[in-house]
Amino acid sequence: MKIQAVKGTRDFYPEEMALRNWIVDGWKRVSVRNGFAEFDGPIFEYLQMYQVKSGDEIVEQLFSFEDRGERKLAIRPEITPTLARMVNQRINSLPRPIKWFSVPRLCRAERPQKGRLREFFQWNIDTIGVDDVYADAEVIFTTIDYLQETGLTAKDIQAKISSRRLLKALFEAAGFVDDELPALYLLLDKKSKLPAETFNEMLEEKVADPARRKIVAQIMGVKELNEVSRLMKLPEEASAAMAELEELFALLEVMGISDYCKFDIGIVRGLAYYTGIVFEVHDIKGELRAVCGGGRYDNLLKDFGGPAVPATGMGMGDCVLEILLRERGLIDESLAARRLDYFVAVLDEALRKDAIALTARLRRKGMRVEMSYKGGGLGKQLKAASDIGASTCVIMGREYIEERKVAVKDMATGVQKLVGTEELLVMP
Amino acid sequence: MKIQAVKGTRDFYPEEMALRNWIVDGWKRVSVRNGFAEFDGPIFEYLQMYQVKSGDEIVEQLFSFEDRGERKLAIRPEITPTLARMVNQRINSLPRPIKWFSVPRLCRAERPQKGRLREFFQWNIDTIGVDDVYADAEVIFTTIDYLQETGLTAKDIQAKISSRRLLKALFEAAGFVDDELPALYLLLDKKSKLPAETFNEMLEEKVADPARRKIVAQIMGVKELNEVSRLMKLPEEASAAMAELEELFALLEVMGISDYCKFDIGIVRGLAYYTGIVFEVHDIKGELRAVCGGGRYDNLLKDFGGPAVPATGMGMGDCVLEILLRERGLIDESLAARRLDYFVAVLDEALRKDAIALTARLRRKGMRVEMSYKGGGLGKQLKAASDIGASTCVIMGREYIEERKVAVKDMATGVQKLVGTEELLVMP
Repeated sequence: MKIQAVKGTRDFYPEEMALRNWIVDGWKRVSVRNGFAEFDGPIFEYLQMYQVKSGDEIVEQLFSFEDRGERKLAIRPEITPTLARMVNQRINSLPRPIKWFSVPRLCRAERPQKGRLREFFQWNIDTIGVDDVYADAEVIFTTIDYLQETGLTAKDIQAKISSRRLLKALFEAAGFVDDELPALYLLLDKKSKLPAETFNEMLEEKVADPARRKIVAQIMGVKELNEVSRLMKLPEEASAAMAELEELFALLEVMGISDYCKFDIGIVRGLAYYTGIVFEVHDIKGELRAVCGGGRYDNLLKDFGGPAVPATGMGMGDCVLEILLRERGLIDESLAARRLDYFVAVLDEALRKDAIALTARLRRKGMRVEMSYKGGGLGKQLKAASDIGASTCVIMGREYIEERKVAVKDMATGVQKLVGTEELLVMP
Repeated sequence: MKIQAVKGTRDFYPEEMALRNWIVDGWKRVSVRNGFAEFDGPIFEYLQMYQVKSGDEIVEQLFSFEDRGERKLAIRPEITPTLARMVNQRINSLPRPIKWFSVPRLCRAERPQKGRLREFFQWNIDTIGVDDVYADAEVIFTTIDYLQETGLTAKDIQAKISSRRLLKALFEAAGFVDDELPALYLLLDKKSKLPAETFNEMLEEKVADPARRKIVAQIMGVKELNEVSRLMKLPEEASAAMAELEELFALLEVMGISDYCKFDIGIVRGLAYYTGIVFEVHDIKGELRAVCGGGRYDNLLKDFGGPAVPATGMGMGDCVLEILLRERGLIDESLAARRLDYFVAVLDEALRKDAIALTARLRRKGMRVEMSYKGGGLGKQLKAASDIGASTCVIMGREYIEERKVAVKDMATGVQKLVGTEELLVMP
């Protein structure tokens, strides 16, 4: 029997695992220093949970199944519904603001392509219970804080920022009603990925009235924040949304990341649940899918049966990020190299049990230690040591038998010195 | 809409997550120091992969589903088949010994009960390509190395060790044929969990001949390794298995963990693929399920379409471990406490943007920093700081406006001193 991995999934051999750990550990470290606490939920939830608010694209991509009790379940395609469920369950006891992060494994039954797999890891940060636009700014800051730490600069990436609140106010002023908006957002979200002709055909399908199509084009054609007021006499809600965006950009300036940030009305986000500031980080060359995206979703907790509590967050998958980091040469090729404290070798096979004993004692002291499985002459053992990248060898020979001393050999310089085993056990 | 979590799954709020991270980080650290490299596979694989060698109990507990291409898939209930698949795929290029570990999330569709959930995490360590019993000893050592580090002593836990190779030789000498053994092992594995009467009834069902049942009872009645030779004139294979067990116990002695280890012929392991040394770690009081189990499985790679390569390994779930650690008082209650470097507060609301800027700069230097979202008077902000466990506050007031200095306040002692912000940014 010879079985393959399922298409669109990945095997993480130690080399790939080291890279994944480096990415995930970075996500965790930056989350913690920005004041977020880690949470996680189950890998599967009731199917129904994803059918309500996730947006059509995600619903179509669910891996669903039934358990023995014929409950309809699904592997999680995103973690935000789980977050909403968990927060709602303890809404009265959790101190606010709730600032949580997670690095869930997610699955989507889509056709595998560049930067999109059927299984991936996604960094999520969310601030719940804060209405202030500072929370949105902080989510964007934390995102950039991480990306900048990987070595990406403002010449590589840009956070493109818009507001669903602004778009909604503008579209409503142009005569659209609430029910029409989710489908419009989903289409506009795809605009940059579609040929202009295809987009126009699809827009014609959704919006029959040519006058309305024109205003959609005008709105989406805005290049700078200060052009918005030239579109029309702004209704009060649109002015409020504008003020919010202006405050956001002022905060991003204060935080020192304005060189990474730009207003872009074309950022719409496909998910149905966004209500305010939305953003995506893109590679500046525009060759890849979005590195991440997020925004404010003030109604989600209520939609999941809880009270109305404001919320804002971000999700970043590992696939596009990895491609970008690789293209920019920002992945350390030595990540997977093993870092051993010692490799224990013996001059005489008769000392093998002593080597086993010493190896065990060093490990129990917390040191990373390996020895040869095959034994053989010292040369062979030192070759094995160098093959697995040991920088220091402990050689047990005559001095061990006579006075419990071992030779500690620096593999790079070849320099070696005699050390008592008890001394070795307390060495840093 | 109010949706619950699926029964048998867990929500990891920050407190539970901190505990899970502590367990998983310990598994990882001890694996690395014992020379194992981390790997992982996909959360789902082809269903067929688990139907071949996993043993009936696991096959019955699969969460299976179909993708859009009508491929039959299953969420992984264990990682060993994935390991066998991955190693086989690169069998000619992977340097040996292959010493890998993993901490996979696994799912089994079983009835949730104490220490058994439908979703859990499992530490796995495996050594592939080493025939020598030292590899088995090292797997047991690594297991005990971790458990001992958590604070568990030889008074709390014991590794019970037996040999499927020995059992097979004894049962064959008693007239059993190869095909009968998997079902017998599965039954014997349950012996300690069943009332004697139920076990005897089930044994009668499987083994019709009373003479054979008697020899099964005699074999399972052995208390010490040196009693085995009194059962019968040992066939050659049984003697070889005995010699292997004796060598194993000698190595465990050399490694300094013999106080944790004991021969126990009753350790059979339910899984079909074990071929040699098998072991389980139990709490000494015998109140819980096994903390972990493992053993040698020399045929698995071949069964998965690869060459015959020897292998030995161990799996430890997080559920029983957590119960045991909790019962023994070995879980640090402050694990989930947030460890902030600074909480930034302002004397005057007009300084809020300066506080935001300072917070951002400190975070970019790698420091864990939080500030108040609500603002308000200094007393209110210091209360917020103490609520989230900040040990040091940075207070921005008049001295900041006049000379860019802030007061650094030790929250425990109340002592505060003036520090320049640039100095703060380079403080450790």
